[in-house]
Amino acid sequence: MKIGINRQFRLAVRPVGNIKESDFEYLEQPIPSPSDGEVLVRTIYLSLDPTNRIWMSDMPQYMPPVEIGHVMRGVVIGVVEESKNPNFQQGDLVSGVLGWQDYAIALGNTGKGITKLPHPLPAPLTAFTGPLGFTGYTAYFGLLDIGQPKAGETVVVSAASGAVGSVAGQIAKIKGCRVVGITGSDEKCQCLTQELGFDEAINYKTEDLETALARSCPNGIDVYFDNVGGSILDAVLTKVNLHARIPVCGLISTYNATEPVPGPYNFSQILMKRVRLEGFIILDYYPQLSLAIRDLGQWLNEGKLKYAVEIVEGLENAPSAILKLFDGNKKGKLVVKVSEEPTF
Amino acid sequence: MKIGINRQFRLAVRPVGNIKESDFEYLEQPIPSPSDGEVLVRTIYLSLDPTNRIWMSDMPQYMPPVEIGHVMRGVVIGVVEESKNPNFQQGDLVSGVLGWQDYAIALGNTGKGITKLPHPLPAPLTAFTGPLGFTGYTAYFGLLDIGQPKAGETVVVSAASGAVGSVAGQIAKIKGCRVVGITGSDEKCQCLTQELGFDEAINYKTEDLETALARSCPNGIDVYFDNVGGSILDAVLTKVNLHARIPVCGLISTYNATEPVPGPYNFSQILMKRVRLEGFIILDYYPQLSLAIRDLGQWLNEGKLKYAVEIVEGLENAPSAILKLFDGNKKGKLVVKVSEEPTF
Repeated sequence: MKIGINRQFRLAVRPVGNIKESDFEYLEQPIPSPSDGEVLVRTIYLSLDPTNRIWMSDMPQYMPPVEIGHVMRGVVIGVVEESKNPNFQQGDLVSGVLGWQDYAIALGNTGKGITKLPHPLPAPLTAFTGPLGFTGYTAYFGLLDIGQPKAGETVVVSAASGAVGSVAGQIAKIKGCRVVGITGSDEKCQCLTQELGFDEAINYKTEDLETALARSCPNGIDVYFDNVGGSILDAVLTKVNLHARIPVCGLISTYNATEPVPGPYNFSQILMKRVRLEGFIILDYYPQLSLAIRDLGQWLNEGKLKYAVEIVEGLENAPSAILKLFDGNKKGKLVVKVSEEPTF
Repeated sequence: MKIGINRQFRLAVRPVGNIKESDFEYLEQPIPSPSDGEVLVRTIYLSLDPTNRIWMSDMPQYMPPVEIGHVMRGVVIGVVEESKNPNFQQGDLVSGVLGWQDYAIALGNTGKGITKLPHPLPAPLTAFTGPLGFTGYTAYFGLLDIGQPKAGETVVVSAASGAVGSVAGQIAKIKGCRVVGITGSDEKCQCLTQELGFDEAINYKTEDLETALARSCPNGIDVYFDNVGGSILDAVLTKVNLHARIPVCGLISTYNATEPVPGPYNFSQILMKRVRLEGFIILDYYPQLSLAIRDLGQWLNEGKLKYAVEIVEGLENAPSAILKLFDGNKKGKLVVKVSEEPTF
C-alpha cells in the first residue's frame, strides 16, 4: 500500500467553445489501493489529444463522454507500482486509457484497460505516446486500411505536423506516394518537407488553399487523410480524383464550435467523383494492432519514421497545455510528463 | 434515307434554380442520315431523370455538361430505322444516351452509345426505362455493392417511390432486410407499404423525420440509400448504427439550389459511428451490367419486383414534364412517349 497524495483533475463543467482551465477541478485524494485482480499504475506520461475535447462534450460520440465530477480521461504511459494481478508485476511499463491523475487503478481482474509495453523497450518511452502508441496506430490503419494508397498516387494530409498527421504522411511516403501536408505555420511547413520527407507543404493560414492544392497536386488528390474537417475538407473536395478515398480521422476544426457546423459545401463532389469517405476510430482495430506495432517499429528502427514529442512538465500544467492542441502552438505529439521514467 | 422532320429540344440557357420550359429551345431539323458505321434511331421513350438537371448546369459533374445550343441529352429507348452498321438491323430495339429529339444518329462505327435490347423482349418495353434500365441498374449496384445489406439489417431509402428508390427498397426486401421508405405524400406511402412490400413508409412533408425514423427504425439504420442529400441525410445521420453504409446515389434536394448548399450538419456522425459514405455512378458498373440484368429480370419474372411508369405523351411535353421530377408530382419512372412502339 502506497501512502501519499493522488493529484487529480476532474471535469468540472462541459466546455462551451474553447476549453478553459476552469473547466477542470483540481483535487487531492489519497493514493488508492488495488483490490484483488487490480493494479496500481503511476502515471509517467499523460497524452493530450484532440479527441479529449470530444470526451469533454456531450455531443454524440464513440465512447461515453466523461461525466461531470469524474477524473478527466486520458491515455497514459505508466509504471505498475503495486500489483494484485498475476499478469502484472511491479515495474512493468504499461499503457492504457486512464486519467489525469498521478495514480490510477487499472480495472478488471484481467488487467483490462492496460497493455504491457515490450521489455526491453525497442524505442524511447515517449515513442509509445506517439508513433508506437494510439496516434501511430491511428495513422497506420486510417491511411492503409481506409485510404488504401497506391504507389504514385497523391496523398494529402491535414494537421500534417500533428502526432497522427506526421506519421500518416511518412507512411504514405514509405508506400511510394506523392505527399502534401497542410499545416499552420511556415516553420512547420519547413519541418514537413525538410525533416519528414513530405514532397510539399501548405501553410493554410497564409495561402489560398485551393490555389495551393492545385499547385502541389498537379495530378489531383487520390487520398485525403482528414484530421480537421471544415473548410479544408471543402477545398480538398474541389481537387479529388475519381474514386478518391477520404479517411475521416478527426474534425478538430469543429470540436470547439458553439453553433451547428455545416458539412462540406462541396459535398456533391462525393457523388460526382465517386469518393469514398469513411470515419474510423482506432478502437475498431484492436484485434489487428500487432500489425501496426510490427511495421511502425521496423520503420522507426530503419530511420524511415521520425517523430517529435513536445513535453510539458507537471500534471498541474495539463489544463493549460491542452489548449495548445487547438491554437496550433505545438509540434508533434503533445504529452505531459507527470512523473519520472523508472531507471532500470 | 428517311424524309421528314426531326423535332428537337436544345438547351437554350442553363437553369437558375428550378428548370423553366424556356430553358429549352424547340427546333425542327431534317431527319439525319447515317454514314458508314452509323445507325439512325427513332426515339420511342425518352427517360426523364433527376441527373438531367446536373447535365443542364455547369457545376462540376461526372460527364461534360450539355453545351448551350446542343440537343438536350437523355436516355432513350428506340428502334433502329436505318443501319449502316453490321451489328444493327432495321427494327432492332436499342437503348442509349441520345437526346430530346425524334431521331438520333448513334455514333461510332461500332454502334457505340447504344445497346441492343434482347429479342424477344422478356418484359414490356417500358420496363427497360425502369427496373431493366439505368435506374434499375443504379438501384442494384448502389444497394448491393456499396450498401452491402445483410439480412435482418435496417435499410432506409429516400425518394423511395421514385424509379431508383422503389427498386432499391424492393431489392433490400428480397435480401431479407427491414425496409423503410421516405417519400412525399400519404398516397405514395401507402403504395410503398401495400404494393411494394416496404415495412414502413414516412411522409417527410408531414412528419418530423427524426421522430419518424426513431419509430420506424427501432434498431437504428444500417444502410441509407440516399437519393436526395440535404436535411433528410442529416436526419438519417442521427440514427445510423456503427459501421453504417450510405451509398450516395443522388442529391436531388440540392440540384436546383442557387446558393452554396452546406453538407450535413451531423457530418461528425460519420466519424463517431465510423460510417462509410460513398458516391457512385452507374457508368462505373458497365462491365458488370449483365449481373444486374440477370437478377433484375429474374425478380421481375417471379413477381418480386414491381414498378410503375408514368408516361407523358408527346415529345412536345418533355420541357414541362421534367418539372415533375422536382415537385414530387409523379410516381415511379417518368418517361415521355415520343413515338409508337413497333408491332412485330
